[in-house]
Amino acid sequence: MQKHDPILDHALITPSARIATVTHGWRAKCLQRLVRLDMPVPRTVALPAGTVRAIAQGASVDSDAILALFGPAPLVSVRPSPENPDWGGPATVLNIGLNAARHRALVATHGVEAADTLYLRFIQSYATHVARLDPEMFDAPVPSAEAIRDALAAYEAEMEDPFPEDPARQLSEVLRSMARAWEGTSARLLRQAKGAPEDGGLGLVVQAMVQGIGLGISGSGAIRFVDPVTGLPQVTGHYHEQSQGRDALRRDGAIYLTRDPRGLSLQEVAPGIFAQLLGCGTVTRTRLREEMEIEFTIEHGRLAVLDAIKVARSPRAGLRIAVSLADDGIITRNEAVLRVEPGSLPELLHHQVDPRGPRDRFVRGIAASPGAATGRIVFSSDAAQASAARGEPCILVRRETAPEDIRGMHSAAAVLTERGGMTSHAAVIARGIGLPCVVGASDLRLDTRDRRLVAPDGRIFAEGDIITIDGTAGEALAGAADMLAPALDDAFRQLLSWADAVRDIGVRANADTPADAQTARTFAAQGIGLCRTEHMFFEEDRLVVMREMIFADTAKDRAAALARLLPMQREDFIQLFDIMQGLPVCIRLFDPPLHEFLPRGREGLRDLAEALDIPLSAVTRRAEALSEVNPMLGMRGVRLGVVLPEIYAMQAQAIFEATVEVGRRGAAVVPEIMIPLVSARREVELVKSHVDAVAATVRIRTGRSFDYRLGVMVETPRAALRAGEIAQHASFLSFGTNDLTQMTYGLSRDDAGRFMNTYVQQGVFPEDPFHILDVDGVGELLLIGADRGRATRPDLTLSICGEHGGNPESIAFCRRAGFDYVSCSPYRVPQARLAAAHLALLDRGCDDAG
Amino acid sequence: MQKHDPILDHALITPSARIATVTHGWRAKCLQRLVRLDMPVPRTVALPAGTVRAIAQGASVDSDAILALFGPAPLVSVRPSPENPDWGGPATVLNIGLNAARHRALVATHGVEAADTLYLRFIQSYATHVARLDPEMFDAPVPSAEAIRDALAAYEAEMEDPFPEDPARQLSEVLRSMARAWEGTSARLLRQAKGAPEDGGLGLVVQAMVQGIGLGISGSGAIRFVDPVTGLPQVTGHYHEQSQGRDALRRDGAIYLTRDPRGLSLQEVAPGIFAQLLGCGTVTRTRLREEMEIEFTIEHGRLAVLDAIKVARSPRAGLRIAVSLADDGIITRNEAVLRVEPGSLPELLHHQVDPRGPRDRFVRGIAASPGAATGRIVFSSDAAQASAARGEPCILVRRETAPEDIRGMHSAAAVLTERGGMTSHAAVIARGIGLPCVVGASDLRLDTRDRRLVAPDGRIFAEGDIITIDGTAGEALAGAADMLAPALDDAFRQLLSWADAVRDIGVRANADTPADAQTARTFAAQGIGLCRTEHMFFEEDRLVVMREMIFADTAKDRAAALARLLPMQREDFIQLFDIMQGLPVCIRLFDPPLHEFLPRGREGLRDLAEALDIPLSAVTRRAEALSEVNPMLGMRGVRLGVVLPEIYAMQAQAIFEATVEVGRRGAAVVPEIMIPLVSARREVELVKSHVDAVAATVRIRTGRSFDYRLGVMVETPRAALRAGEIAQHASFLSFGTNDLTQMTYGLSRDDAGRFMNTYVQQGVFPEDPFHILDVDGVGELLLIGADRGRATRPDLTLSICGEHGGNPESIAFCRRAGFDYVSCSPYRVPQARLAAAHLALLDRGCDDAG
Repeated sequence: MQKHDPILDHALITPSARIATVTHGWRAKCLQRLVRLDMPVPRTVALPAGTVRAIAQGASVDSDAILALFGPAPLVSVRPSPENPDWGGPATVLNIGLNAARHRALVATHGVEAADTLYLRFIQSYATHVARLDPEMFDAPVPSAEAIRDALAAYEAEMEDPFPEDPARQLSEVLRSMARAWEGTSARLLRQAKGAPEDGGLGLVVQAMVQGIGLGISGSGAIRFVDPVTGLPQVTGHYHEQSQGRDALRRDGAIYLTRDPRGLSLQEVAPGIFAQLLGCGTVTRTRLREEMEIEFTIEHGRLAVLDAIKVARSPRAGLRIAVSLADDGIITRNEAVLRVEPGSLPELLHHQVDPRGPRDRFVRGIAASPGAATGRIVFSSDAAQASAARGEPCILVRRETAPEDIRGMHSAAAVLTERGGMTSHAAVIARGIGLPCVVGASDLRLDTRDRRLVAPDGRIFAEGDIITIDGTAGEALAGAADMLAPALDDAFRQLLSWADAVRDIGVRANADTPADAQTARTFAAQGIGLCRTEHMFFEEDRLVVMREMIFADTAKDRAAALARLLPMQREDFIQLFDIMQGLPVCIRLFDPPLHEFLPRGREGLRDLAEALDIPLSAVTRRAEALSEVNPMLGMRGVRLGVVLPEIYAMQAQAIFEATVEVGRRGAAVVPEIMIPLVSARREVELVKSHVDAVAATVRIRTGRSFDYRLGVMVETPRAALRAGEIAQHASFLSFGTNDLTQMTYGLSRDDAGRFMNTYVQQGVFPEDPFHILDVDGVGELLLIGADRGRATRPDLTLSICGEHGGNPESIAFCRRAGFDYVSCSPYRVPQARLAAAHLALLDRGCDDAG
Repeated sequence: MQKHDPILDHALITPSARIATVTHGWRAKCLQRLVRLDMPVPRTVALPAGTVRAIAQGASVDSDAILALFGPAPLVSVRPSPENPDWGGPATVLNIGLNAARHRALVATHGVEAADTLYLRFIQSYATHVARLDPEMFDAPVPSAEAIRDALAAYEAEMEDPFPEDPARQLSEVLRSMARAWEGTSARLLRQAKGAPEDGGLGLVVQAMVQGIGLGISGSGAIRFVDPVTGLPQVTGHYHEQSQGRDALRRDGAIYLTRDPRGLSLQEVAPGIFAQLLGCGTVTRTRLREEMEIEFTIEHGRLAVLDAIKVARSPRAGLRIAVSLADDGIITRNEAVLRVEPGSLPELLHHQVDPRGPRDRFVRGIAASPGAATGRIVFSSDAAQASAARGEPCILVRRETAPEDIRGMHSAAAVLTERGGMTSHAAVIARGIGLPCVVGASDLRLDTRDRRLVAPDGRIFAEGDIITIDGTAGEALAGAADMLAPALDDAFRQLLSWADAVRDIGVRANADTPADAQTARTFAAQGIGLCRTEHMFFEEDRLVVMREMIFADTAKDRAAALARLLPMQREDFIQLFDIMQGLPVCIRLFDPPLHEFLPRGREGLRDLAEALDIPLSAVTRRAEALSEVNPMLGMRGVRLGVVLPEIYAMQAQAIFEATVEVGRRGAAVVPEIMIPLVSARREVELVKSHVDAVAATVRIRTGRSFDYRLGVMVETPRAALRAGEIAQHASFLSFGTNDLTQMTYGLSRDDAGRFMNTYVQQGVFPEDPFHILDVDGVGELLLIGADRGRATRPDLTLSICGEHGGNPESIAFCRRAGFDYVSCSPYRVPQARLAAAHLALLDRGCDDAG
């Protein structure tokens, strides 16, 4: 390796030294801040990343000059200081400078045992980390002069060179070793996986040792002033008497930090030092504007602060801490908003598997809907309902779910499916109703006939066995795991109200049922952006009537069946309007193909024939006639509305009668009616003329006036391309990005699961486009649709209501495109509100955020 | 009704009179042309449409002035003369002016019987057409003085007014009646259905009567100089002695026009007049530049030409006549090209039901593939093959066809399906292989279990019954219909060679098999634009290996199966390259989902398990794993190519080895390899790197160099939107408009049949977009793709290869967009060549065409 002799920059950390995170790393910068705050920080020298890189490339180090900065005969430690603490770094090395002479000096000041222990540990550490020898060679059970001799001999035997006695040489070797370790391939890959750039550098800090071992009160520890799980004020951490640094002698000597009936505490043993630590906490919190964990050492009764790092925290603690700092005026409300990651919110809304408990995973899948639940395995929706009726939580396990499983899903505590991806039926419904869900657990063998589940490791789970679904991690666990409750507390609401104050794009919820609507209200959605009416027809009593309608031979019979559905639909809408209290409700007219309402399999058809009193052959023939090769591209949406206009007429009547009914009680409702799967202007014209006629009839019959808005769900590429003429008849366009993605890619979300992983792994698609909006393709269609629509009708309301609605990326896209709102499943509303606020704040720049 | 007195324009037709088709109608204009050609046309007065409209609105007619133009005591006829002969018009009225006095005069000149007959007929005609009385009241079996009296009395009794004696009043009433008839609602709707504009007017011609009845040689007839079915020179027509006009006394007196052993002929009876008629034919043909049918009357041995109309002709006659006129220098070749409708060609390529024979239709459907064939009904592909093996033509009747029916279709003479539309599987394949096909015969009841077919009228057809499929008309006929043979003669080839001389866009054929390629050559396609390789794997021996590949557990087993397919594929391509003799061949890599290669139903799976020696459960499990909710949007096309790269590698190797093999024999082949279902650039990159690697290997192993072109089939909206970056790796883009239409509309062509009729009838879609390219939506994506592709790579080759490729509308679109070629099924190639020539000629303007 080539030798360079650059000017190897290094700086003693003082309040005025030029130390920057980007050059010297986060630890050096943090130590300088502590120095500026007059914390008792041991003398520290910072080596910037440029110097460390030069060392790695072979530059020689003037360690004598560095050691000279620490006074006579110092012992020092070297710690990594990358730009970002998440990037990791090589292990810290303590007690550099120890040799036979200084060992003798230590015996005098700290006693034989401490001196032997420290010397032996240094030899081990140097041999392992610097000379890269096998750690097992240096395992010595009891420190002693003999053990030290053995270790030195082992080193020499292996290295064919005596253990270095010169402290400067020791330091040089440690620095070179750490600098090179940073450049190793595995280290580079590891830190890049955590987001480090390819050229991310490593700073190093050389710090005078404070021993924490010796006479009088000596020890080391770390103290936090909040609970890292809840974020509430509480002193937590640890303290060990006669110990050194983080990786030192913790085998015994642990005492509590605060007064505790179970044993001694630092607060009692050294009240002055404890008070000093509390003071450090207050200073760091107010001046560093963050909850810090302080790493400290006490030597001979004197406190030294070695380091301070941001308290590692659970999402709920993070939110609580941000709100508390803002409440105390330490940071602004906007900064508090920015400090909470939108993606961290979903798990606050649900039960979670307690990370501190045991975890017996039997299969991995796709984390389709967050939260966790425990229950007994069931293999059918009927069994799920029976279990719910008995009051027993159950986990519905299916190959995949279909619309007829919806009642079963509502009855289950969680869902596990063998097939499907992020936007499969199970995943979409589960997110919609806040049900923990794992899909695509394709390593499972689901044996429906014998009602059992075979895990990849061969374990067999039978119906009735208890398992836990962790929808946040995408895992299924054997047995009942320990749980954490949801965290919808005052801090949560406080932070989101601050977010709403700066947000500049609307957030609505997709809500099909009164329960959904209630959840949407709980999460302060600004209305319903998508109410899918078809789910209303899967309820038992309605399904029967629905099927009668499907089997009606004449328009008259069909109308008779629909007339029986009308009061039920009206009641649905009255409930929704009541819950939403005047907030906008966008109702999508009937969308799915009719065959979804028929039972599957011969047995189901036989039951149906019996129920409807029709020959089985007639039922089978109709079912065959309705079956489709590609249901996604078939007779559904507005196509049904055009061919069988009675269905939309019934729905419009129900909507308007509900509007009148709720209006009579004093609430002004302006319903929004949305036409699905449009591909041509004329479809909108036809439906509009029918709906207008129904409205006129209801106005005349009830003698009450009301307004409504008619709009189009843009789900086909053609609707986006023709948005200009479609907007002639639509007062809003809402982009259904699920279907639009399917059609733009020619990719069924139900069938994409089989190769999506391969595609994402090979970088064919940068992301699953059903998960992250494809800005290049689908996004361009959104922009085309929005531009052309607004060119026709400048006051056109624009929104998206697909699964992407809650994603920060989609929200950013819609904000840039000037959309009015996004709509997402109720449980994603908080995340969307917060993400939108982040975007608004980031657009304003740092002034405001600081 | 209001009375007007406008100046009622009318003109005596002379060589210099101002007569124009647009004002006076086609008949008036034609008569003027005949006058200019010195034909013996009786004196004629033309009333322009403005006059006729005024008359309908109540203007009074100066009939005295009109009659005065005909000399003393004339008898005249009035005939309709709309702008276009296709628009129809009111019935001709003859012998206006007949009254008691003129009846007496006629008795003197023409005899009692003729005079009575004419008078009685005039009374009947006037009463029926002008007074609108019931025709039955005037049915008189034998003309006589008594019959005339009765008729006049009946008229007077009914009208409470005597029959008008004044010739001027008669004429006025006839004119008014005809003018008003034109304005009637049903007349208007009828002519608008034939393309007349809303304000299309009616001219009328008043012509001096030539009686064709009387002493000496008298009679009337019509003569043509070509056979209207074949277009070959031949005198055809009819002549009746003692008859008048077209609707006169034809009950007897028919004699042949030309010498005939069966009886007397005009040629013998009046050789001078016959020669005069031949002369008229020569003059009209050369001067009117068209084959005309001449309507003539002979009165007392003197010829009068009453009218000349374009000979009604079959498509094959039309083509022959156009070529013959051009060969004789009467019209230009370009004009001959323009005179043949591209849409008339397909039926020349196939057998047709003879229009002159009886026709026993039992069901109507969609005319999915032109031509006609007779055979015995079979209900399965196996039965079709068995029938073919016995040498018996059969008609394959299916609910709908699937890829596994392809061999059955190849064995059948025609196909009839209960379901499907213009782009269903059956329709597409049938057009591709030139098989007559009717689909969507949804009024049929197909009873596959009892192997019978129930027609809407209750007739039952069993397996083995003989039926005829008329794919041109979209009808199925009971029994064996009379047939016309195809007309691929020298005139056909001549005309298309003239078309090719002016055409400025390429035409290739979609051809999957050597037979297709041979057809493509027969029709002078300029190469193969789409060779779908998957059809090659449905042949019996290959299907077995294909299934082995699908059931392979490891990549190694898969490769082993593919290695067995390799030589077969190579042989396929060698054959294609040999047939195409250096013309470009664009090969689409494997496209369909793998489950298409598995048998359907439990029985088929059991057979397969036996054949592959695998447990049935394993076969069922694999089949279930491969099944898809929306196969159109699933694991197919390049997705297979990316996930199972072995398939494309085998195909590329087969293509390159075939290229080398054919190259060794001296033919330079530059194969074009096309990647299907692309939606992202990276898909193209990945496949390209594999294909390039295979090419390098084959070059090294064979020691021969060759070139090839790699391109992309644009079938997803996203591929069109991202064409800019996709073109970085593609040297051509071919738009697959079938799939692109499906995805742009979100509409499966297999499922659209159920509502497409309703949609087109209600004007939701102006046309079935699978039939006529949707210029507004799909077309915009084509333009976007073309523009962006060419922006990246100016020499990018652009084409379409969907079902739309052969449509004149699509060809026009692609020409305007600067595409290089269109590709269509082989049987549509002639039509596409001609349509493209039309477009080029129409662009050049009339100068050239005239």
